[in-house]
Amino acid sequence: MQVIKVGVAGASGYAGGEVLRLVLGHPSCEIGSLTAGGSAGTALGLVAPHLGPLRERVLQETTAEAFADHDVVFLALPHGASAALADALPDDVVVIDCGADHRLVDAAVWERFYGTPHAGAWPYGMPELLSNGGARQREQLVGARRIAVPGCYPTAVSLALAPALAAGLAQPEDIVVVAASGTSGAGRALKPHLLGAEVMSSMSPYGVGGGHRHTPEIEQNLAAAAGQPVQVSFTPTLAPMPRGILATCTARLRGDVDEQAVRAAYESAYGTEQFVTLLPEGQWPSTGAVLGSNQVQMQVAVDPHAGRVIVVAAVDNLTKGTAGAAVQSMNLALGFAEDTGLSSVGVAP
Amino acid sequence: MQVIKVGVAGASGYAGGEVLRLVLGHPSCEIGSLTAGGSAGTALGLVAPHLGPLRERVLQETTAEAFADHDVVFLALPHGASAALADALPDDVVVIDCGADHRLVDAAVWERFYGTPHAGAWPYGMPELLSNGGARQREQLVGARRIAVPGCYPTAVSLALAPALAAGLAQPEDIVVVAASGTSGAGRALKPHLLGAEVMSSMSPYGVGGGHRHTPEIEQNLAAAAGQPVQVSFTPTLAPMPRGILATCTARLRGDVDEQAVRAAYESAYGTEQFVTLLPEGQWPSTGAVLGSNQVQMQVAVDPHAGRVIVVAAVDNLTKGTAGAAVQSMNLALGFAEDTGLSSVGVAP
Amino acid sequence: MQVIKVGVAGASGYAGGEVLRLVLGHPSCEIGSLTAGGSAGTALGLVAPHLGPLRERVLQETTAEAFADHDVVFLALPHGASAALADALPDDVVVIDCGADHRLVDAAVWERFYGTPHAGAWPYGMPELLSNGGARQREQLVGARRIAVPGCYPTAVSLALAPALAAGLAQPEDIVVVAASGTSGAGRALKPHLLGAEVMSSMSPYGVGGGHRHTPEIEQNLAAAAGQPVQVSFTPTLAPMPRGILATCTARLRGDVDEQAVRAAYESAYGTEQFVTLLPEGQWPSTGAVLGSNQVQMQVAVDPHAGRVIVVAAVDNLTKGTAGAAVQSMNLALGFAEDTGLSSVGVAP
Amino acid sequence: MQVIKVGVAGASGYAGGEVLRLVLGHPSCEIGSLTAGGSAGTALGLVAPHLGPLRERVLQETTAEAFADHDVVFLALPHGASAALADALPDDVVVIDCGADHRLVDAAVWERFYGTPHAGAWPYGMPELLSNGGARQREQLVGARRIAVPGCYPTAVSLALAPALAAGLAQPEDIVVVAASGTSGAGRALKPHLLGAEVMSSMSPYGVGGGHRHTPEIEQNLAAAAGQPVQVSFTPTLAPMPRGILATCTARLRGDVDEQAVRAAYESAYGTEQFVTLLPEGQWPSTGAVLGSNQVQMQVAVDPHAGRVIVVAAVDNLTKGTAGAAVQSMNLALGFAEDTGLSSVGVAP
Repeated sequence: MQVIKVGVAGASGYAGGEVLRLVLGHPSCEIGSLTAGGSAGTALGLVAPHLGPLRERVLQETTAEAFADHDVVFLALPHGASAALADALPDDVVVIDCGADHRLVDAAVWERFYGTPHAGAWPYGMPELLSNGGARQREQLVGARRIAVPGCYPTAVSLALAPALAAGLAQPEDIVVVAASGTSGAGRALKPHLLGAEVMSSMSPYGVGGGHRHTPEIEQNLAAAAGQPVQVSFTPTLAPMPRGILATCTARLRGDVDEQAVRAAYESAYGTEQFVTLLPEGQWPSTGAVLGSNQVQMQVAVDPHAGRVIVVAAVDNLTKGTAGAAVQSMNLALGFAEDTGLSSVGVAP
Repeated sequence: MQVIKVGVAGASGYAGGEVLRLVLGHPSCEIGSLTAGGSAGTALGLVAPHLGPLRERVLQETTAEAFADHDVVFLALPHGASAALADALPDDVVVIDCGADHRLVDAAVWERFYGTPHAGAWPYGMPELLSNGGARQREQLVGARRIAVPGCYPTAVSLALAPALAAGLAQPEDIVVVAASGTSGAGRALKPHLLGAEVMSSMSPYGVGGGHRHTPEIEQNLAAAAGQPVQVSFTPTLAPMPRGILATCTARLRGDVDEQAVRAAYESAYGTEQFVTLLPEGQWPSTGAVLGSNQVQMQVAVDPHAGRVIVVAAVDNLTKGTAGAAVQSMNLALGFAEDTGLSSVGVAP
Repeated sequence: MQVIKVGVAGASGYAGGEVLRLVLGHPSCEIGSLTAGGSAGTALGLVAPHLGPLRERVLQETTAEAFADHDVVFLALPHGASAALADALPDDVVVIDCGADHRLVDAAVWERFYGTPHAGAWPYGMPELLSNGGARQREQLVGARRIAVPGCYPTAVSLALAPALAAGLAQPEDIVVVAASGTSGAGRALKPHLLGAEVMSSMSPYGVGGGHRHTPEIEQNLAAAAGQPVQVSFTPTLAPMPRGILATCTARLRGDVDEQAVRAAYESAYGTEQFVTLLPEGQWPSTGAVLGSNQVQMQVAVDPHAGRVIVVAAVDNLTKGTAGAAVQSMNLALGFAEDTGLSSVGVAP
Repeated sequence: MQVIKVGVAGASGYAGGEVLRLVLGHPSCEIGSLTAGGSAGTALGLVAPHLGPLRERVLQETTAEAFADHDVVFLALPHGASAALADALPDDVVVIDCGADHRLVDAAVWERFYGTPHAGAWPYGMPELLSNGGARQREQLVGARRIAVPGCYPTAVSLALAPALAAGLAQPEDIVVVAASGTSGAGRALKPHLLGAEVMSSMSPYGVGGGHRHTPEIEQNLAAAAGQPVQVSFTPTLAPMPRGILATCTARLRGDVDEQAVRAAYESAYGTEQFVTLLPEGQWPSTGAVLGSNQVQMQVAVDPHAGRVIVVAAVDNLTKGTAGAAVQSMNLALGFAEDTGLSSVGVAP
């Protein structure tokens, strides 16, 4: 069997740790260099005790040299840091960026939301995403050598709404999304509002009013699905759980669309996708059911009184929302079966 | 000092227990009969060990006779059970219904959502709620002898959106609300999806697509604020916390409304209300900050790109969302200071 | 590759669901019949939405006929129900009982704690457990056709204390254990004290004073390690988390034993065991680090002032504490590599 | 009514915030200066949004001048910082130290555990604590002007075990305690292991092997109860909840003591104490039932097989475990009714 050598830059953070958890279960991967910023020099077991088999691996400084002779390098770095490292790696190395740097196509939008120069867009690692003509992102990933992993919120929201927009069942003008995320989505930053005593038993919103950096990414994906610009009101909230995103996504119905028409569009969109499940009628998704898995579970409803379609999607922000998408994209890039090393089964209850 | 005798029908449930927690701290109340259904005959301490001073009180059967000679009777009963008991109590007894039976004015709407005959509407226990002409619900509560306590979601949502609608800053046609509730909101029913192992670390929606019974109550309140019918898309979700509601409420802006105009409307609406706080700019509410208190904390944002105003409100579903409103209404009915026995301070962290 | 046909009796409960989660990832297993009690006739997806690939499988009634032609049958039944089903299965079928029925060797002890006739003891599915002469339970499992899966608490406690007792470093007379368990350990029973609103943000003990049924199982294991009878004071507590056991286990030191001697005994006991990890000095286990994995993480300390050795062990009660041990035992029984289908990596954070 | 002016040094931390929550509900207190370290200059509402009525109060630097003309000053400072401020305050000001500096009587023990010079012991703010002769700490607090507030763990453990030791029912030589605490007990320090994503769904021990600084305080209290030295093996653990301590405390029985004898001792010890409740037989304490209250709930069991008495006690670490004891002590010092401003009712569920 072909064995590829995989490195992770930013292995001490939550995204990097989840990449490692998955790669440890990938039968064709050998784990190479692990690098970090402030934790360089530390044994991985001290910062990530759940990664038992890698306990004694020492984190190195993040340099291109650390990744010489690697086949795949996952970047789990603060935004703005990916481009320099990627540029220093050979073109034939598969570089998979879990950060935001290469997600947005429009440089002006990037600069408005991030305030730094745009590093350019890479093929976007959401294989199941439909565009208006019916093509999927998957096609861009086969054989790719640079891949931008989607944000966690955009994963849930884009997969939830793209079929309705692509099928012309929903209007693009007034989409409203409210999503709840487990606190690992905020990373390992030492901020008072992320302390356990603050977040347990409490919910709060943030980035309200269009300010969240995932808004333009969501709009980019949904515009591609709709074939025209979209406007999204997106409000993220922080929920008292370590992992998981529950995205409640609503759009105005076009004309007299009923629930069966919507279900049909979603069955058509995802009937052949092993990592996206439209639940049976009457059953709603929960983040608990997808914990640790690469699954998106969703359900649709039509509210004729309010004139809206509501799609609720659940993902694990670290797995399908980050590292699972990264590994799935790697599989496509290198020609492995798309689900290698990825589970469709959640760790529940 | 005047001392009134207070009874609670349904004292073994979460709402009844919270009424007792508050009444125990009310300087003018003496606690009379406590009744229950299946728990009748049991000492209260076995079902509500947090109510220490009432530990040895035995729960009685729920009958009108049990409440003879009481000044106030709180009803915390399953819906449909309030009217019969209320009818059997003298007209001059203050009857405060924490259930849904007397909230909705429109009998046809009641019957559509509950499937039982309408018991008639009572004065609505949300003192701070603005109607379109500027009047507040408070006026209806002074001296009232029958009071319908609002639902927990309608409390957060109605107070969040009424000022924008009453001031004509938002459109009534396409309101979208997504709210998260702690699991005590579902009561003490023994259902598998409410088990701790299921709800911890997990979020899920329910009643999606207009089916939740709080939707017509929200629309009734907001229509009164707007002075015209409203349509609300309301999606409730279950969050992994015992208490608290975080309601994210959005409405389309009218014309060129900016954030300062919205803030001004809310300052005007709530500047004199001790239990509703518009937070300083830049600070967002959290349910943790209002735990156990009668406070509503809220914040507003205007998203010109999406054309929406977003108001996020946090309440404790059992306190301001149920029992606190009940006690506040009792205070108004009987002429006590409105905040007697109620705290503006949350139990945090 | 050899493919074996595996059935699960009691597939709708938490233990049965976890067996299925693991077996789905086992490369040599094909999933046969799934049976249940009250949920028979229901699609598995409705009670266990995390088991996506088995969503449409319909739960059957639990009968021996349902398991005709199976190679392995896992029993996840209420205690007392295993023997009858096992007796009706052919002798060459591997029957692995996740329940308590066949764990205790002493019939009188069984009857005292369970009040029913003793069904007889089976080989005990804790491969790593040391007995006083240095033998391990593993030896009994190779080729076995009937296996009793250990209880979740006994897994953590027995592995934590056996090395100190087997090496004669600790006294058997006055062992004190306090352990915290996630609420899935109590199963899916609909009891008020297991409701989410009750368990979140709260801890409480149960079965205090020697009454917990896991006490005799712990003593049986530790007596085998010590080579003499032991007395254990065991207090279990319920913790606000879905999964995980943290067991704090203390025993009186024999003579002048120091921490290095204790560490040496544990390194010797577990240095070659892939599923038991003695953490590096200074690092303490957490249940979060072993979530969903088959790992036991532990750490030791010697407190000369108190004259005690303290060993703290963390396991996932459903994985290593139940279903992981069951699959590990099946692997030994059938000659697969012992870790097939089992992960050493936790799902964290 | 006499109104006293109360200040808080360290008002931005969890202990200081809880003192303020309670003092806001105390009818005889006016809130004076609030000081902080790094947060000086900030509005209190930004760091403690639950303290609504004090939202606009600006935190000052911590100096003695800030507290000129105050009647009572609560110190909620890092250990080592209390003595200097206390020395600079007039002798007739009531200074109540929520920190550790003045709890330990033995200077050598202080220095061994804290590594700094001993600041001297003050009257100890645990009114209900029994000493061997039957006296209670309460006597030392009446009229006191310097008070050391007990640690949170010592509150639960000392009240749990003192009656058995004072009555000679338990042996002092081999006490074993394992306690779980909500994460607010670790304060607001920005440490990775206190992040929400790390602590939710996880339990872990710390300070194992006698190293926790609360051990000598527990031993000091229990030695006074026993009338002779005691040895305690104490293991604290961190539980996934914001507040609460559940302490499982065990001691060897003396002779043939049975459960009724133990119950009688506890009824005698606490029958007249309004803030300590021995629960009815068969009911065990939970931290949820005492959330936000000044109650200690406990239950006893005798395990004749293991030869131990087990006492489990639940407190809110921030209320009875810190700020409630502080206010209770203030009430005794100044001659208010002991329960003024303190609740016996928990905020549950």
